[in-house]
Amino acid sequence: MLESNNLVTFNGLANSSAYHTFLLDEERGRLFVGAKDHILSFDLTDMTMNNQLISWPPSPSRRDECKWAGKDLQECANFIKVLHPYNSTHLYTCGTGAFHPVCGYIEVGKRPEDNIFRLESSHMENGRGKSPYDPKLLTASLLIDGELYAGTSADFMGRDFAIFRTLGEHHPIRTEQHDSRWLNDPRFVSVHLIPESDNPEDDKIYLFFRENAIDGEHAGKATHARIGQLCKNDFGGHRSLVNKWTTFLKARLVCSVPGFNGIDTHFDELQDVFLMSSKDPKNPVIYAVFTTSSNIFKGSAVCMYNMADVRRVFLGPYAHRDGPNYQWVPFLGRVPYPRPGTCPSKTFGGFDSTKDLPDDVITFARSHPAMYNPVYPINNRPIIIKTDVDYQFTQLVVDRVEAEDGQYDVMFIGTDIGTVLKVVSIPRGTWHDLEEVLLEEMTVFREPTVITAMELSTKQQQLYLGSSAGVSQMPLHRCDVYGKACAECCLA
Amino acid sequence: MLESNNLVTFNGLANSSAYHTFLLDEERGRLFVGAKDHILSFDLTDMTMNNQLISWPPSPSRRDECKWAGKDLQECANFIKVLHPYNSTHLYTCGTGAFHPVCGYIEVGKRPEDNIFRLESSHMENGRGKSPYDPKLLTASLLIDGELYAGTSADFMGRDFAIFRTLGEHHPIRTEQHDSRWLNDPRFVSVHLIPESDNPEDDKIYLFFRENAIDGEHAGKATHARIGQLCKNDFGGHRSLVNKWTTFLKARLVCSVPGFNGIDTHFDELQDVFLMSSKDPKNPVIYAVFTTSSNIFKGSAVCMYNMADVRRVFLGPYAHRDGPNYQWVPFLGRVPYPRPGTCPSKTFGGFDSTKDLPDDVITFARSHPAMYNPVYPINNRPIIIKTDVDYQFTQLVVDRVEAEDGQYDVMFIGTDIGTVLKVVSIPRGTWHDLEEVLLEEMTVFREPTVITAMELSTKQQQLYLGSSAGVSQMPLHRCDVYGKACAECCLA
Repeated sequence: MLESNNLVTFNGLANSSAYHTFLLDEERGRLFVGAKDHILSFDLTDMTMNNQLISWPPSPSRRDECKWAGKDLQECANFIKVLHPYNSTHLYTCGTGAFHPVCGYIEVGKRPEDNIFRLESSHMENGRGKSPYDPKLLTASLLIDGELYAGTSADFMGRDFAIFRTLGEHHPIRTEQHDSRWLNDPRFVSVHLIPESDNPEDDKIYLFFRENAIDGEHAGKATHARIGQLCKNDFGGHRSLVNKWTTFLKARLVCSVPGFNGIDTHFDELQDVFLMSSKDPKNPVIYAVFTTSSNIFKGSAVCMYNMADVRRVFLGPYAHRDGPNYQWVPFLGRVPYPRPGTCPSKTFGGFDSTKDLPDDVITFARSHPAMYNPVYPINNRPIIIKTDVDYQFTQLVVDRVEAEDGQYDVMFIGTDIGTVLKVVSIPRGTWHDLEEVLLEEMTVFREPTVITAMELSTKQQQLYLGSSAGVSQMPLHRCDVYGKACAECCLA
Repeated sequence: MLESNNLVTFNGLANSSAYHTFLLDEERGRLFVGAKDHILSFDLTDMTMNNQLISWPPSPSRRDECKWAGKDLQECANFIKVLHPYNSTHLYTCGTGAFHPVCGYIEVGKRPEDNIFRLESSHMENGRGKSPYDPKLLTASLLIDGELYAGTSADFMGRDFAIFRTLGEHHPIRTEQHDSRWLNDPRFVSVHLIPESDNPEDDKIYLFFRENAIDGEHAGKATHARIGQLCKNDFGGHRSLVNKWTTFLKARLVCSVPGFNGIDTHFDELQDVFLMSSKDPKNPVIYAVFTTSSNIFKGSAVCMYNMADVRRVFLGPYAHRDGPNYQWVPFLGRVPYPRPGTCPSKTFGGFDSTKDLPDDVITFARSHPAMYNPVYPINNRPIIIKTDVDYQFTQLVVDRVEAEDGQYDVMFIGTDIGTVLKVVSIPRGTWHDLEEVLLEEMTVFREPTVITAMELSTKQQQLYLGSSAGVSQMPLHRCDVYGKACAECCLA
């Protein structure tokens, strides 16, 4: 375990915590961090210099209301949950607002040298469907073309979970309410846009989350990791599913190790997702971090998925059951046309909008949100497994490195004890036989604390890490520690 | 880890192995051991003295047939799988007979001093439904009142698993064939008679086994531990279920640790069962050893069950499903009378034999062999859990010890690396809060080898252990190792 002297740490503000929401802005050379009652702006080259700060606590009256509603005073603050680029001059941000979600615009200027960092306090918006009420709930969001896609909870009690699209010119749209087949107590991890073809009409939004399995009470409670899809141009149904997604589909993400007797060991608690973009923007490689659901057997795993497998599952059979006492089976009947989940576009069929979809398509989509087949990882097993250690993985970023003998994906894995593992998967002959090599294990936070946010700047060759306690910055490759001749370093 | 000098070991015969089938005969002072091609008789006081041996290999022609059928030559031997007292002068024994099961009678004489140990080779019987064909398959049996109850496989291919009653004057009887609801690739562990009332007509046979779960393909493959029940006076149905059990019921045995989010960690691979008899023969305490099904997370646990909970489950709702695509639900309709699973007796109703059962009872029994509710362990959790070690539990015997401050159950746990753990569970205040104390960990077999058989002689105060390599004998309590004053020893 190395403690690096080139580690730069921001030890947090006295009246803040929860440095969990990161926005990396390579162009402006800034790392924006949403925390408790504050939004910070750090210089990417050196976090300790040239910081800027927005203080955005709830009003005293709002705080009192929260307290009177029986909430813990610690939670009656404005925890920033959403932080995205909005346009060329502004960011969009939302926070829990002491159990009363609120959003606003932050002016950051066009160029780095503008040196602006200011919340437009005259222009606040309701944050319902964007930020959760409860800071403990996991939320994931993506802002694209002026519209915010957010997987979150939209009520005070934290029961109405949904995937929303808000902002922009269109009417807000969401997932079907009170239907556990659509979402069953989801914990959202991340949201991404991945194009399906060269035609933007086919663009899809993918959501990663974990939720409670609904395989029947008899089988016992379990968590399943999920990938969900939506069409960017979904505007809901006309007569039914009005202002609800008509193209939502989800599939199980399996990360398991094959066992004797065919009994596999599952890692189901999806913790983080990293998309490694390739030359083809339609086909990023999906890296995902999982932990086990057991409190007796603690372990972590990293699985890789490719988009071809994801698309094959969404084009495969829908999960179907005839009623509550039935098992889930693959739907073998006639699927209505156009196939639910297909985006309205010139590429795949002759309909212009989801509002034009025939009634049978909407009816089918409403009752068949899940696919029968799961998405299995590349090579059908994790690329990394860690068991028999007293920590678990929480975060992952991947750096693609050109070495003399080819390309390597170097993984930086954050843990729940404030450490980072630097791991590389090397093909042992073929890509079907990978050997994981642990290059370094670094202590980032002195106090054991959960690493909850991680961003990688390829331009700066730096890694940024967030936790409850503060923010740290670390060079990706520290050749000076090993010396230039060191094999590990050359590789990294 | 102690290596005892009072350990006595029989290192096996040159042409034998698999010392797996034990029969303890306290009256004659002998331990009978069934092995490969041999049955041995040991003196309980000292295994190295006064041994007797029966050699019972298959005939050369039988061995050739086995070889021609494509079986491994190592398995083309007579592995002794059944060894029980038959009457006052004879034992009954069965072996695989080179994939052609065979049984016979062993004369042992009335008194110890007769010194007889002889296979009645003129009186051999077909062993089908008593011993498996394949020595790798697990079999459990009990011989009582001249009848043999055996859970085994009854065909060459090892596919037709059933619970049989053979021998005696009645027609052989078995479980329904080709019905995975009854048995689904079971691995039998043990068979016991436990009276239900003071009336012998209510006597029940209980079987312990593990089998494949049939909760639907979608849920993934899993093993479930089971307790099965049969009436001793079941003679099958009259028009339907002829020569099949009409009183067979099974329930899941759960051994799990409660987890956060309600997701429990299950130990499902039942390995061994020990019944600790109490003053009331109707209510022994059931000790059961389990391991995990995962090859990544290896662990072992001991759970305790009481008969009141077992009986409550068998009197509870039957598991029901309307068809293959349905889920298992509790059967809430009208259960026919007499309730399936009840023994014909004067105690519980006015019918004399299972042959008199109404058709609707037989029809119901045939399609509802499983109970909906599982049997949970005492205190809803294991009394011992062992994880993060490189071995697993395989066998268990329990010695009830009177100490100055009360009664203690001292557990001797055999492992798959040839060691024995001596563990005592001490109530920490109440019986709902047990503290496990590891008293000793002893190496029994020098080479790491799986302990596959274990018997305890309370009369001799000795423990007997079997493995592939040989048989060992060990004193239960070795006060001389610690000295008389030692607290652990006084306790033990």
